[in-house]
Amino acid sequence: MDIKGIQQRLRVFAEERDWERFHSPKNLAMALCAEAAELLELFQWLTEEQSRDMAGSERDMDLVREEVADVFIYLARLADKLGIDMEEAVLRKMELNEKKYPVDLSRGNATKYNRRD
Amino acid sequence: MDIKGIQQRLRVFAEERDWERFHSPKNLAMALCAEAAELLELFQWLTEEQSRDMAGSERDMDLVREEVADVFIYLARLADKLGIDMEEAVLRKMELNEKKYPVDLSRGNATKYNRRD
Amino acid sequence: MDIKGIQQRLRVFAEERDWERFHSPKNLAMALCAEAAELLELFQWLTEEQSRDMAGSERDMDLVREEVADVFIYLARLADKLGIDMEEAVLRKMELNEKKYPVDLSRGNATKYNRRD
Amino acid sequence: MDIKGIQQRLRVFAEERDWERFHSPKNLAMALCAEAAELLELFQWLTEEQSRDMAGSERDMDLVREEVADVFIYLARLADKLGIDMEEAVLRKMELNEKKYPVDLSRGNATKYNRRD
Repeated sequence: MDIKGIQQRLRVFAEERDWERFHSPKNLAMALCAEAAELLELFQWLTEEQSRDMAGSERDMDLVREEVADVFIYLARLADKLGIDMEEAVLRKMELNEKKYPVDLSRGNATKYNRRD
Repeated sequence: MDIKGIQQRLRVFAEERDWERFHSPKNLAMALCAEAAELLELFQWLTEEQSRDMAGSERDMDLVREEVADVFIYLARLADKLGIDMEEAVLRKMELNEKKYPVDLSRGNATKYNRRD
Repeated sequence: MDIKGIQQRLRVFAEERDWERFHSPKNLAMALCAEAAELLELFQWLTEEQSRDMAGSERDMDLVREEVADVFIYLARLADKLGIDMEEAVLRKMELNEKKYPVDLSRGNATKYNRRD
Repeated sequence: MDIKGIQQRLRVFAEERDWERFHSPKNLAMALCAEAAELLELFQWLTEEQSRDMAGSERDMDLVREEVADVFIYLARLADKLGIDMEEAVLRKMELNEKKYPVDLSRGNATKYNRRD
């Protein structure tokens, strides 16, 4: 199932339950942020190395998979409500990034990661 | 391009720039949350009604599209780093939700939206 | 107890439990963001009007009070770890805001709230 | 100036500009979360060790101080709008934590930090 198929199924899910009225873009942006923070919480006391090793724990991965799904679901709903073609928006942003950070200037150069403003 | 294709292109993008070392799951979860909050910020002083009307402003929509893309990109990267099949995780969660909230019990029933714990 | 007194008590609490090693500024910023999102979650499906009426529900207010406290605690810890005088930082920012938004130009003018960039 | 003094000054600031109408608890919770994420962003590509060393860079600290102030300001506003005594809420939560994590059981025991659910 592709992104648009997922969005279609989420739309039917909300309509059947008469939940569209709760799904204003404002509320969906809040739910998305809350889910992203639940994902964040799974990593907050881990070292970076521990976070890289997380894939080795099936119990942890179940939690991560569920939060990843929740973030995706609210993002897909928000995009759908506003008529945004998510795949197109992502491809456009990737092209911008590829121009903004050319390989030869970016390689071995962490400027993007050292600047914090 | 499907989700896996996007993830593949993002992986190459990071590898070519030698940026994988910054992309620990912990750091990606932080970047994801920061981008979700930038999306949130676009809606914070709007009424729900104004947020529903946002699709009418091309200038606003450019901002929303870019933040939606940023959230997607970091989510896709995080899933990729942990070997999570995002489409599968989403479909599994949708099935759980469909069982948890049967149409006949959920219709005209906003219990999910009234409980806050 | 003033802000510095609270910070002092939180510092002793962490030291006594040998938890300082988890409290890097990076980790505390994550915990702070996660708690702010738990607070956000309490409001996500409410209308603005319902959120204004929340003070009427003692059960809801218990939840809000606890999340407000959690946000304060991690913010105070983070400031303490970095040697930031929180009261001074707040007063300085308030002075900046008072200059940036003079009453006569800001009154009846929601520019700050209409701009979204 | 104590917490209540800061809240009083923030209230006058909003009233004088006729901005109270934007400051529903829902909107303030969004602004709080957005500011917490701006603070998070300052740390997202740093190692924990780099984040501990941040106090050595005056330029970085100016950014951190400003974001810390912004988080405090929206938290204080939200508490004020809902009639929450922030100091009291914090002290109550600290007492709960002191009972929940007794020193003798918690020392050298990172259970709180290892559990992620």
